[in-house]
Amino acid sequence: MNIGLLGFGTIGSGAYDIINGELGHFPKDRARITKILDKDPSKHADSAQIVTDPDEIMNDDSIELVIGLLGGHDFEYKMIKRALESGKHVVTANKAVIGAHFEELTNLAEENGVMLRYEASVGGGIPIIKNMEEQLRLNTIDKVSGILNGTTNYILTKMTEEKTDFDDALKEAQAVGFAEADPSADIGGGDVSRKIAILSSLAYGANIEDEKIIKRGLDDVRSADILETLRMGYRVKHLGESVNKDGEVSAVVEPVLVKESHPMAGVKNEFNIISIEGDVIGELQFYGKGAGKEATANAIVEDVLDVLDAVDEGRLLKKPVLSGNVSLNGNDAFEGAYYLRINLGANKKHDLSDILEKVEDVVSLKHVNTQDNKVFIFTDKVKSTDFDKLAESFEVGPGEMFYARIVE
Amino acid sequence: MNIGLLGFGTIGSGAYDIINGELGHFPKDRARITKILDKDPSKHADSAQIVTDPDEIMNDDSIELVIGLLGGHDFEYKMIKRALESGKHVVTANKAVIGAHFEELTNLAEENGVMLRYEASVGGGIPIIKNMEEQLRLNTIDKVSGILNGTTNYILTKMTEEKTDFDDALKEAQAVGFAEADPSADIGGGDVSRKIAILSSLAYGANIEDEKIIKRGLDDVRSADILETLRMGYRVKHLGESVNKDGEVSAVVEPVLVKESHPMAGVKNEFNIISIEGDVIGELQFYGKGAGKEATANAIVEDVLDVLDAVDEGRLLKKPVLSGNVSLNGNDAFEGAYYLRINLGANKKHDLSDILEKVEDVVSLKHVNTQDNKVFIFTDKVKSTDFDKLAESFEVGPGEMFYARIVE
Repeated sequence: MNIGLLGFGTIGSGAYDIINGELGHFPKDRARITKILDKDPSKHADSAQIVTDPDEIMNDDSIELVIGLLGGHDFEYKMIKRALESGKHVVTANKAVIGAHFEELTNLAEENGVMLRYEASVGGGIPIIKNMEEQLRLNTIDKVSGILNGTTNYILTKMTEEKTDFDDALKEAQAVGFAEADPSADIGGGDVSRKIAILSSLAYGANIEDEKIIKRGLDDVRSADILETLRMGYRVKHLGESVNKDGEVSAVVEPVLVKESHPMAGVKNEFNIISIEGDVIGELQFYGKGAGKEATANAIVEDVLDVLDAVDEGRLLKKPVLSGNVSLNGNDAFEGAYYLRINLGANKKHDLSDILEKVEDVVSLKHVNTQDNKVFIFTDKVKSTDFDKLAESFEVGPGEMFYARIVE
Repeated sequence: MNIGLLGFGTIGSGAYDIINGELGHFPKDRARITKILDKDPSKHADSAQIVTDPDEIMNDDSIELVIGLLGGHDFEYKMIKRALESGKHVVTANKAVIGAHFEELTNLAEENGVMLRYEASVGGGIPIIKNMEEQLRLNTIDKVSGILNGTTNYILTKMTEEKTDFDDALKEAQAVGFAEADPSADIGGGDVSRKIAILSSLAYGANIEDEKIIKRGLDDVRSADILETLRMGYRVKHLGESVNKDGEVSAVVEPVLVKESHPMAGVKNEFNIISIEGDVIGELQFYGKGAGKEATANAIVEDVLDVLDAVDEGRLLKKPVLSGNVSLNGNDAFEGAYYLRINLGANKKHDLSDILEKVEDVVSLKHVNTQDNKVFIFTDKVKSTDFDKLAESFEVGPGEMFYARIVE
């Protein structure tokens, strides 16, 4: 089978190295990349033609499969639609496109009798999409959660292990290539919410829209939070999470605390972990590299192999069943004990006793510590919607407050 | 498709509940269990016939698939062979049979044009066999390791969290049904070595024999070890592990220490975790319930669904490629820092200075602590073969010495 590759950046060249090159043991007799779309015509590939005009791939009837690794949204969305409409199978890592058009694109693939695969769009090299599909054959999945962003996890690992503050850890992440020059989609939770949208759409059989997922970024975490929560036996993690309770879906991306002995506590640097809960299988977790050239390219080519097998055997891989029978409703379903740090004097309206009184109006205090003009509070269990409201009421500036739900 | 079920115990009734009953959403129109072999004729199933004579299943041409859940070795081995030779597909959880006859049975299935699936034989509900097969399409896997036994992991969890001693934790495990009346296969490592044999055979493409895997049981661990290693930031785990270095395979089941922040440290009670390392994908880990009725039955029925899909589409699931090009050579490949506890006076020949001298002849000491007439030693890195020899030379009685490699 001839393959057209859209994008010859890091992941694209990794996929090329596997399919046309010597990385791994891809069955060379079964498929090869014949054309690569890249805006830079000076790029060279030994065994494929570099093209700058997408028509050269889209109008080439010998190309039966398109791998989409351009990134961004608009142009790749158009390309994926066009490929599907041209009767070409599509394998992509583009979470922005899949997250925003899950239902439309899976339907479009079906209408055109071709397959759309997107394993690498979530969790890098972790085979979460395929495993979820397999479990969904028997199970009703009602919870999905995970550490899904290498940048924030790298920052939190550095802050925890080397006691660096947020800004320095971010700069370090940028220096080693784990964070982009504009890290706002990573830090703000937008990257994770797209991935949770994809996982939730598949798990609950409905188009869960990324925009409606509540996002709290990691901007406000400071080394004081890392130290205080470590002292109390916790690790700070940036978690994406969704639950389905009888068709009411709650989904959130936010900082959380997990106990040191929690399976997610040991997930470091660019590694990701994803947990799913089924009614028969119970909890399953999948751990691996959430980013990086080889691992992500591996996921891309696993998809390619599945498409090749299906084509050779004259069948189509099953498309997700979208019954549409759920609605997304904020973060109503979540509750937990909370950790809260407020810098005293951050807001002239609140002194220590005011703060404690306001918190106690909402939830019992379990542990209070003041140090370096900061108050650190651990609370009893409370609904997340109530705690979010409480936190909002403090009206403090960036970094002057940080809070996180404790996940058991 | 009609299915014959061999064995109507815990897992067997779980599989029946899924396929013929209301647990999960198995596609009822595609298959059902028509006959169940059980030695107790008084057992009842609403929608299947209980038979006590295996001929009733083996000679029944309407039965195309046999699920083997009898346990033990000899009788089920015969039954699986007979089913394959009768042209029936086989799905089994029997690790003793698969571990001992991996090559013979996978070949026998191929010769008879049927499929043999054994997902539930390793790691209960964790889909490790299928995921390993998928990664092997591209990757060379050179390392497999995992916490693969619920009994020992339950005992270690109780000893760590509740500070119970070994004997009490074992009794507790037996009381709640996590350990058998004769727990020797679990405690001694025989159960784990069978699972490592299966995973290694598949990963390295050769028949790795269970009997040749070096096993060190958990018999000698005492609460003093748990407390001292906890104090130093470690958890004791019972690990199965194998590596393939250019065709030389080392495989071992033994107690190890992992840092509290290691992903395996948080794996508790009956949960299992399995790690595989591929040359392209890097490390992947899979976590879930390693035992229990529903999770294990889920894995059985996932296999049944794969067989059903393949039969419906007129194809066979690929059988593992066994090149046979590896040899199993003890534990040559392993090395690490070590923890050692010896009860002083356990052997009249050794006093503290003798012990330290003997250890220092083999490896540098990193940390020594004596307390309650015991010496606790943490060493530098050393080859496992050398440390095993050292430990053997102390000639102490049961429980008077315990040692564990530190896994990073």
